[in-house]
Amino acid sequence: MNNQRTGILFVVSAPSGAGKTTLCREMFDKFPDLRHSVSFTTRPKRAGEVDGIDYHFVDRSRFDVMVAAGEFIEWAEVHGNCYGTALTFLRQAAVAGADLLLEIDCQGACQIRDSIEDAVFIFVLPPDFAELERRLRGRETDSDEVIAQRLTNAQGEISQAHWYDYLVINDNLEEASQRFAAVIGAERCRTRHLSDFLNQQFATT
Amino acid sequence: MNNQRTGILFVVSAPSGAGKTTLCREMFDKFPDLRHSVSFTTRPKRAGEVDGIDYHFVDRSRFDVMVAAGEFIEWAEVHGNCYGTALTFLRQAAVAGADLLLEIDCQGACQIRDSIEDAVFIFVLPPDFAELERRLRGRETDSDEVIAQRLTNAQGEISQAHWYDYLVINDNLEEASQRFAAVIGAERCRTRHLSDFLNQQFATT
Repeated sequence: MNNQRTGILFVVSAPSGAGKTTLCREMFDKFPDLRHSVSFTTRPKRAGEVDGIDYHFVDRSRFDVMVAAGEFIEWAEVHGNCYGTALTFLRQAAVAGADLLLEIDCQGACQIRDSIEDAVFIFVLPPDFAELERRLRGRETDSDEVIAQRLTNAQGEISQAHWYDYLVINDNLEEASQRFAAVIGAERCRTRHLSDFLNQQFATT
Repeated sequence: MNNQRTGILFVVSAPSGAGKTTLCREMFDKFPDLRHSVSFTTRPKRAGEVDGIDYHFVDRSRFDVMVAAGEFIEWAEVHGNCYGTALTFLRQAAVAGADLLLEIDCQGACQIRDSIEDAVFIFVLPPDFAELERRLRGRETDSDEVIAQRLTNAQGEISQAHWYDYLVINDNLEEASQRFAAVIGAERCRTRHLSDFLNQQFATT
């Protein structure tokens, strides 16, 4: 029935260490028709990355032109590189009936919320702060200062969770994955996404 | 985490032949903590029925007192028997954190919508009218007149589907069951149901 409805934009945020990346990967496995929202970036392409799949790689002047033309629904500069989400890309996917999963920080999500009112906002949470700290320390790659900074950042991100539509609590990967999949499955059953089906099959008003 | 949130009321309607009863039974199997909303009725108890489980069996004068006292969020008289849903029952379940599944016709659902704004409304649909007719004829228990009447009624019910939150299209029982379960699973992840969890674990505002 996918071709009978417009695509849904799922916007996912989480503090570092909540398991967002792993969960999103599981969603792409579970839903082969779910597409990754491809951002534009000025960051150099890394080994193995493919233009148009991982990112749309553009140079800074092209990016600036897109910013000036208002083509980005949200964009940000991080460590000297720019990242942006193009509104036309989201609109084309919606019209084509494709569901998109967009991983983005709270600030970017906030900008999207102001532009696309029927996007679905999902926040991935650790079960509590202590567990988040355990996970960040468990990586053993970061210094205490970096971990402290990540925890402070996490607190800031989590303070935004209240306005998201759904909270996926990642206490256990399998259960969190089921919850996340339920959100995607349920949103596809939303009456507002199926009004074309309703009108075509039953001609109700 | 169920004890950290208020219970959710799932209200389910469907035209006759859509498969609502089978689907609801599957939900009670899948979610052992999901409770059946027990209606009050003046209809005589049938063999095998248990008071307080299948229905709260009451006599007509008791029912009338409850109606007069405004205890029913919705009630109706069908073939001389009265059926009603008591508001206190729903409130107690919500406070106890119990999720309820209430099977009810569109008219009853409509009355509930006007009283309980955060109930979740689910409409079970056949894939199309032709399939609904096939299913009703397949029962081989009803006359053509009865089937014609059921189809007319179905049309009336389906004309109400547009205001429900979710449409569960029952083209295939297994897939429909997954969709229905996704709706229950997703609603349990709604931020508005988890605000206590958020406040307790993360003390955000």
